[in-house]
Amino acid sequence: MTGFSADDLTCDRFLGGKIQLLQPRRGYRAGVDPVLLAAAIPARSGQRVLELGCGAGQGLLCLAARVGGIVLAGVELQSAYADLARRNGVENGVSLEIVTADLSGLPDEIRQQQFHHVMANPPYYRKGAHSSATDAGRATALGEETALEAWIETAARRLLPKGYLHMIQRADRLPDMLAGCDGRLGSIEVLPLAARIGRAPDLIILRARKEGRAPFRLHAPVILHTGTHHDRDEDHYRPEIAAILRSGAALDWPK
Amino acid sequence: MTGFSADDLTCDRFLGGKIQLLQPRRGYRAGVDPVLLAAAIPARSGQRVLELGCGAGQGLLCLAARVGGIVLAGVELQSAYADLARRNGVENGVSLEIVTADLSGLPDEIRQQQFHHVMANPPYYRKGAHSSATDAGRATALGEETALEAWIETAARRLLPKGYLHMIQRADRLPDMLAGCDGRLGSIEVLPLAARIGRAPDLIILRARKEGRAPFRLHAPVILHTGTHHDRDEDHYRPEIAAILRSGAALDWPK
Repeated sequence: MTGFSADDLTCDRFLGGKIQLLQPRRGYRAGVDPVLLAAAIPARSGQRVLELGCGAGQGLLCLAARVGGIVLAGVELQSAYADLARRNGVENGVSLEIVTADLSGLPDEIRQQQFHHVMANPPYYRKGAHSSATDAGRATALGEETALEAWIETAARRLLPKGYLHMIQRADRLPDMLAGCDGRLGSIEVLPLAARIGRAPDLIILRARKEGRAPFRLHAPVILHTGTHHDRDEDHYRPEIAAILRSGAALDWPK
Repeated sequence: MTGFSADDLTCDRFLGGKIQLLQPRRGYRAGVDPVLLAAAIPARSGQRVLELGCGAGQGLLCLAARVGGIVLAGVELQSAYADLARRNGVENGVSLEIVTADLSGLPDEIRQQQFHHVMANPPYYRKGAHSSATDAGRATALGEETALEAWIETAARRLLPKGYLHMIQRADRLPDMLAGCDGRLGSIEVLPLAARIGRAPDLIILRARKEGRAPFRLHAPVILHTGTHHDRDEDHYRPEIAAILRSGAALDWPK
């Protein structure tokens, strides 16, 4: 796909205005998932972080807004989104190293580095299992060109020993995620994200560690909204979630 | 191990007195887990059910108390427990076919049958990962002589097409359970069981179906106790759980 023209773009604010994000008016639109993913990563100043499939850079920028002094790199398959990520880095005054590449063909500049953290928000739908999207860029961003196992394998190769992968994904992909970690990453923890109390989690954040040997942990779900049903007037995020989305707070993992 | 003498045994009532269970005073003692497992199985009258590792028969008897007209069989490695299961069947007026066997060497009388349901509450500790139990029978019942994968493989072989496996197990064994199901059973659902709201689930009940093709489902946790901390005076089971434990009600799976 070619680049976006100015008319194709909107500029949206995230984290209570800490971030401005240029993104396509039609296509893959940033949501809360990359914000939650970035909030879940215990990165510290001085560490290097790689995002696989960084899109327009929302996740990386959210992380930069919370943790100062980190070195951020992103890989994005679609050049128009990679260009946007570069622009969004500049606009927000955040240094981002963005490469346009497929996971299976990372350039040397990335392959020669190892990272303290790898983060990823892979497409949520299996290739062939979803109806065709009307926008090609959105279809690629939502569809599955690359198997989840390849995402995890790439992450494992790029992680330093004891480094962490964090991945947000649909809960129904948990078996594929665990299979992908098998023999590559350990100390796996799963944080389910449920819209409301008593509801099945739609999403999970998986944390896995290179050379980790701790037992698997399934945590209590993080509940996103107050109440037991949707209220069309307001979002009613729970206070901890509102603090993440509107103030850039961290998402605390259970001890 | 040899059999139990009368002095070695206690007789305990379950499901509000619907079941009397002879069990060893010292050794593997029945708890709430087999009751919850039996409650989770949607068996119907006329169906055949096999329990792998049936111990003294608590799970089978709980199922018989809730669902009339089912055909029940159990496999137990330890002959003293198998003998108890036979006695407990007689004492409770429930016909149980109990065989003393290792999962890897099931006798023809079981191998020639296929079942609508297989249930199992395999030992909770990895072999070698736990301190030595003082009682040999308890050590076998709690330790892991047989890998979880072998339990699932045996279950899959004994299930009819579209038949269900239900297994209760520690939550940290979920990756091993899913790996064991891979290529053998599908339509996997996981029901986490948490002691209290907001706590990580200690246990899960896994449901998997032979020839099932539905997506994996991770459900909201079932919360066992009211309140947020332990009260030493009373159990304070939540009403749905109390109905299972004290009246033999079913544990309803989310739709």
